[in-house]
Amino acid sequence: MNGITIPVSIRGVYMIETAHGPAPVVILEDKSSRIMPIYIGLSEALSIHSAITHEVPPRPMTHDLFISLLERMHSKIESILIDELNDGVYFARLNIVSDTGHFELDARPSDCIALALRAASSVFVRGTVFDQAVINKEDLKGALGISSYL
Amino acid sequence: MNGITIPVSIRGVYMIETAHGPAPVVILEDKSSRIMPIYIGLSEALSIHSAITHEVPPRPMTHDLFISLLERMHSKIESILIDELNDGVYFARLNIVSDTGHFELDARPSDCIALALRAASSVFVRGTVFDQAVINKEDLKGALGISSYL
Repeated sequence: MNGITIPVSIRGVYMIETAHGPAPVVILEDKSSRIMPIYIGLSEALSIHSAITHEVPPRPMTHDLFISLLERMHSKIESILIDELNDGVYFARLNIVSDTGHFELDARPSDCIALALRAASSVFVRGTVFDQAVINKEDLKGALGISSYL
Repeated sequence: MNGITIPVSIRGVYMIETAHGPAPVVILEDKSSRIMPIYIGLSEALSIHSAITHEVPPRPMTHDLFISLLERMHSKIESILIDELNDGVYFARLNIVSDTGHFELDARPSDCIALALRAASSVFVRGTVFDQAVINKEDLKGALGISSYL
């Protein structure tokens, strides 16, 4: 597998019109301003959006609880890597550092991104995956930020 | 605070008609068949439902990821306690045992229940909270299981 990984930033969560109605996507952007979309579930979209806007919910959301657990166990998310695209499904992993070492957890990109934003962790995409997923910025024209739907 | 806690089982997730349309509730039941409802979010309802029906999703859901993290850190959820009802909002906590001891995390009941079912952990409700929340079984008549909506 190609070893090159690309650091990306999370540009935002948008609603894109599909044949089944508007669907949430998270948009990742690399340093050359190339963008790639990942379709995600609505609750993950809301969780990512609230992390981007630094909203503090009245009660901890599931991803906040995950971060609390990590903190209580003196661990943190060092980085996340979106490293595979298979039949339209993205695979990702959390890279976690604890007192006793380093380990990885298989996870969905949406969970990884929601957690990485809360933990201020780096986000990487495997180069071959980014190349497959990249879209033109024009494809995003007309897409509304998810906040327009809230 | 009253120290009595009541062991309960998770009877299921239902949709109850409200003024704003159908809303998901999880129903808890004690050994005397008394029941209490907790209104929860849709994604948490789906997560609880999939744990009850032992569905294995193609990719790990957020609560599955939480359990993976606990396992990798040699920790487990010993029990959960729903221990406060304040202005219509329930408060709960996860009781976690790790190699180095025991600690609690503040969490929403819906997250606690979704996790407890996956970890086969005991579920407790503070007696005073159960007494405030208990409903008649007739109140549940006509409520459909969430699977009718899927």
